[in-house]
This record gives sequence, C-alpha cells and structure tokens, in this order.
Amino acid sequence: MDFKKHIRTVPHFPKKGIMFRDITTLLKDAEALQKVTDEMVDYYLKKPYKIDKVVSAESRGFIFGAILAKELNAGFVPLRKPGKLPAKTIREEFDTEYSRDAFEIHEDAIKKGDKCIICDDLLATGGTSKAAVKLVERLGGEVKGLFFLIELDFLKGKEKLKGHDIFSLINYEKE
Amino acid sequence: MDFKKHIRTVPHFPKKGIMFRDITTLLKDAEALQKVTDEMVDYYLKKPYKIDKVVSAESRGFIFGAILAKELNAGFVPLRKPGKLPAKTIREEFDTEYSRDAFEIHEDAIKKGDKCIICDDLLATGGTSKAAVKLVERLGGEVKGLFFLIELDFLKGKEKLKGHDIFSLINYEKE
Repeated sequence: MDFKKHIRTVPHFPKKGIMFRDITTLLKDAEALQKVTDEMVDYYLKKPYKIDKVVSAESRGFIFGAILAKELNAGFVPLRKPGKLPAKTIREEFDTEYSRDAFEIHEDAIKKGDKCIICDDLLATGGTSKAAVKLVERLGGEVKGLFFLIELDFLKGKEKLKGHDIFSLINYEKE
Repeated sequence: MDFKKHIRTVPHFPKKGIMFRDITTLLKDAEALQKVTDEMVDYYLKKPYKIDKVVSAESRGFIFGAILAKELNAGFVPLRKPGKLPAKTIREEFDTEYSRDAFEIHEDAIKKGDKCIICDDLLATGGTSKAAVKLVERLGGEVKGLFFLIELDFLKGKEKLKGHDIFSLINYEKE
C-alpha cells in the first residue's frame, strides 16, 4: 500500500512556508490504519528482546504509541507539556520546527533497565525526539529504537539521533 | 482485576479541591493496560453492528481511541483544540470541570451514516462528550456509544448523555 497517498498536504500550515503533512486522512481510513500499524508492530515483534515501555509525546504521538504498547504487550508512558502530569516529573526543553517547548515525564514512569521504544507521528528536526531520548535515559531506561510514521528527510532529524535504530514508514525527501 | 488500584489519586490537582485521578500508573503497567483495553474492545466486538469510526478528543482520549480503532478495524478520528487541525473544520464549545473550551473536527472525517464510538479517558460533567456527540451528529454520523475508562458518578455526566449507550470501567461514586 502506498501510504503517502493517504496523507493530505496542507500548504502554509500552521504558518507560511510550511507544507503540513496531515495524517488524519490516513487515520480515518480503517484499511490504511490497519496496514500502517501492522508494519509498525511487525518491525518490533521481530526484535530479539521484549519491549517494556512505549513512550510517546502528546498528542498525535499517543495514537501510534498506544497501539504499539497494546500490540507488544508493553506499558505506555506519555510525555506531556509542562504542568499536565500530576505527580513528580522531570523536564527537558527542546526546539521544534516552529518554536521552543518542553516535555515532562513522571519520575516513576520508567524503571532502571526498562527497554523502551519512542513512538511519534513525525520526525522533523529531531528536537522533540532528542528530548524524549534524554528523558528516558535520565530515568535509567534503555532506548531500543524510535518509530515515526513520517520522516521529513530534508530536516535531517536523524543526525540528532545518531546511534539509534530509527524506523519510519513515509519519507519526504524534500519539502 | 481491580483496575481502581492502578489509578493514582492526586489531591488538589490541577487546582485546590479537585481529586485528580491519574491514569498514568495504569497505562505504564503492561498487564493492567492489556486487561482494561481487552474489556473495552470485547464490549464493542459483541455488538451486532460494525463500527466505522472511533472518535476521541485530545490528548488522553487518543490513547484508548486509537487502541479501540485498531482492534475493531475501524478508522480513527481526532477531535482537537481550535487551530490544530489543518483542513476545513466545524467547532463546538463546551464547559469542563475547570473551564470553557472548544473542540474541532475535520468536516471530511465522518461520512453520513458512519457508525461511531466516542472514546475518552474520563466522564466528568459530560460537557466534552456532549460536544463530541454534537460534532459527530452534525456531520451525519451515528453515535452508537461512548466509552470511558473512568466515570465520576457524582458529577452526573450521564444526564447530559441520555439515550446513549455508555460503558465505563472504573467508577467513583463520590469525590
């Protein structure tokens, strides 16, 4: 299946010059959602280790992270914007394509040695994902890989994530 | 399994007087996440109709909605805060326990006659869910039921959703 044809491109969103890759057209299509998530799940089921936690940043990341956690029989750990998580947290700041932002994780979300997959809808500049890696590692977790539905190759996010196993299903070589 | 014992209660969050029911302690527990989502999925698998779309509001709602869509072989439709969805939307405003807010849905997310389940982590006053029902119905969708991981019975959210099939797994009779 050509997943890219299920993605809607919206020019100049959320600001002028950005070609926004809208995944809602893929998500609402039951067959496309099945196939894309099956490919994601199969990739990690073939690994020789058991995943303990799937970690995802709000809010689109939750969609793929929750499905992956369910299918791998792992726990699910949300990363949230500051002030959203009610218990004790640690925080990492990062730059996105558009702005400076931060994510928090509960301190008790990851145990030392937990094997984790970080799961998001989009790899752009890699700032968000790098912050997610740092949060997991600060809690003693082991980042076994990162999944992205879409990778914007031209923004070179992979360079920020060197040494990690990165799996993406839809690639845009240029804007 | 006693799901309630996996919920962490945080007093006075996000503001004084609120007993916040934190689901992250359940989500991170692989066994609890499996069991709770299996109960959710089984309930809808027994229905005599095929669900076309699972509709969820950002961001915790995405966690259960995405899993339900995957397991029912349905499409997934996100409801988002204003300005987040890139294509043409319709909007409903609502009151929550804490504030006045709004959700948007893409106009092309639901087709006339689509059988929909609305899926969220929490039923409190029912304002959010009532807005979700209105958005689905304005697009011609048929709301076949609403799922909530947690229902705060004492806030009487069910009264706003009369006539709908409501399924919740963890109930708090009083604050």
